[in-house]
Amino acid sequence: MADSIKVFAPATVANLTCGFDILGLAINGPGDELVAKKTSGSGVTIVSIEGDEGRLSKDASKNTAGISANQFLQEIDYSGGIEISLYKKMPFGSGMGSSAASAVAGVFAVNELLGRPLNQRELLRFAVEGERIACGSGHADNVAPSLLGGITLVKSYEPLEVLSLPVPPNMYVAVLHPAVEVSTGDARAMLPKEVTMKASVKYAGNLAGFVSALYTNDLGLMRRALIDEIVEPKRAALIPHFYEIKEAALSSEGVIGFGISGSGPAMFALADGLEAIAKAGGVMEGILKKRGISANLYISEVNTAGPKILD
Amino acid sequence: MADSIKVFAPATVANLTCGFDILGLAINGPGDELVAKKTSGSGVTIVSIEGDEGRLSKDASKNTAGISANQFLQEIDYSGGIEISLYKKMPFGSGMGSSAASAVAGVFAVNELLGRPLNQRELLRFAVEGERIACGSGHADNVAPSLLGGITLVKSYEPLEVLSLPVPPNMYVAVLHPAVEVSTGDARAMLPKEVTMKASVKYAGNLAGFVSALYTNDLGLMRRALIDEIVEPKRAALIPHFYEIKEAALSSEGVIGFGISGSGPAMFALADGLEAIAKAGGVMEGILKKRGISANLYISEVNTAGPKILD
Repeated sequence: MADSIKVFAPATVANLTCGFDILGLAINGPGDELVAKKTSGSGVTIVSIEGDEGRLSKDASKNTAGISANQFLQEIDYSGGIEISLYKKMPFGSGMGSSAASAVAGVFAVNELLGRPLNQRELLRFAVEGERIACGSGHADNVAPSLLGGITLVKSYEPLEVLSLPVPPNMYVAVLHPAVEVSTGDARAMLPKEVTMKASVKYAGNLAGFVSALYTNDLGLMRRALIDEIVEPKRAALIPHFYEIKEAALSSEGVIGFGISGSGPAMFALADGLEAIAKAGGVMEGILKKRGISANLYISEVNTAGPKILD
Repeated sequence: MADSIKVFAPATVANLTCGFDILGLAINGPGDELVAKKTSGSGVTIVSIEGDEGRLSKDASKNTAGISANQFLQEIDYSGGIEISLYKKMPFGSGMGSSAASAVAGVFAVNELLGRPLNQRELLRFAVEGERIACGSGHADNVAPSLLGGITLVKSYEPLEVLSLPVPPNMYVAVLHPAVEVSTGDARAMLPKEVTMKASVKYAGNLAGFVSALYTNDLGLMRRALIDEIVEPKRAALIPHFYEIKEAALSSEGVIGFGISGSGPAMFALADGLEAIAKAGGVMEGILKKRGISANLYISEVNTAGPKILD
């Protein structure tokens, strides 16, 4: 067994319009890279973080990668030391699951390095714990798709149960990240604490309809189900030209849905086929560009593999 | 074409624990029977109602069967007359979809009598309209399964879209109707107007999980998803010995789920196989019997056919 391993964990689109806090999917890129190395000593040490503009703590008890890896080591009673080098290759505060990708990269790397004592699904709770301790809330809607790939549903939090849903064979994703920052905390503060029963029933009906559509590969139903009347109207205010971009994306041929990625400001579109998503992505990006707002556009299939070993 | 037709429309279990207002299934019996006959004159006349203890209006504009049949006749521009005789074969105010069964029987009978100008799914809106005018709210969670059979999800009300979900091959239903009356109005008045976001997310997660479980025939997941923390705790108070019956049902071998049928007081259990459901139903009924509370127990497969022609 090698003494060192390099891994990649993908960015994710959480909420996915109709599944606030519980639905998400993984994309092929961007994502975080992480090198884990056996050392003398004990526990996890973060030796370097690149690409973080100095924003992340190298204290392994405060960084999602360090926390999830450490929790894992405790669980399997590993007494040796692990050195982690983290290469942040994706934007912070973007709504693309940056902290989740680090958490998944950390625990995935250590599990692989130590000969895979646990299976992939068993790693989930360590990554969730990383999110909980580092970010204050143990959301699984980013870590689940980053770890398991594909489209995931957090069926329940107590106990934590995550389902892998079918991925339509030709589904592509565009993620557009405008160069504005939205803190997850600010975005959460905008959420209503309560919703009407009627709104709650609508939300559940759309989510359940979307799940059904994934099993039957009914693209029309997916589109009719990818609706968010609770969170999107609040958070749209944080995102420049949101409704213009939404309308343009949904008018582009082959587009299945559109929405805010996680807590934003990134937006995403789903489409049937590479050509359709490339066109939709271009249209979305064009709206920001002509206003002089710089943005990054990521085009990808739905990533069904989750994290992977790079070396 | 015959000048007269006799039909049956089944009782239904709405809400189905995890799908308040939008999920439901049909059972084989009880149900309503209805005879529709071509006559001179125009529009629908209700000539007799049996088994209703005098409670239902024979005014066709106030009875779900009459309203839904009349709306249908207007839609297809039929200028002749129809006489309806309604045989109520199921209890009122039971939570088993009595008014919905009448609505479905009415519109189904007339469509068949007139040579099926519309398909079954197109009849849905007339039956919903019958519910709306007669009962004050246009719920589709009973009429949809009564009309389409099987397990149905009202994906949305505006526009009305109903999905037929897969029915597990060996799923049986027990419905226990205690001899106490709960008005749908009273039961609705107990509902919270608002719920917390957290409760709303839980509700959606369970419903989406249940839908996924139907597609994968995962009985364990169905059981973990058949949870209602919003409505059941309120309405349980209207039903004698609810929690004792619930615990006994869920402890009985092979039981997949338990809950209030519609707005109650009927309760239902789902189980894998006839033997398991018969046992569970007996246990549930026994709890009421030993307290001297009379009750009717109905055991049935999930009815995948919906309404049928009897003659």
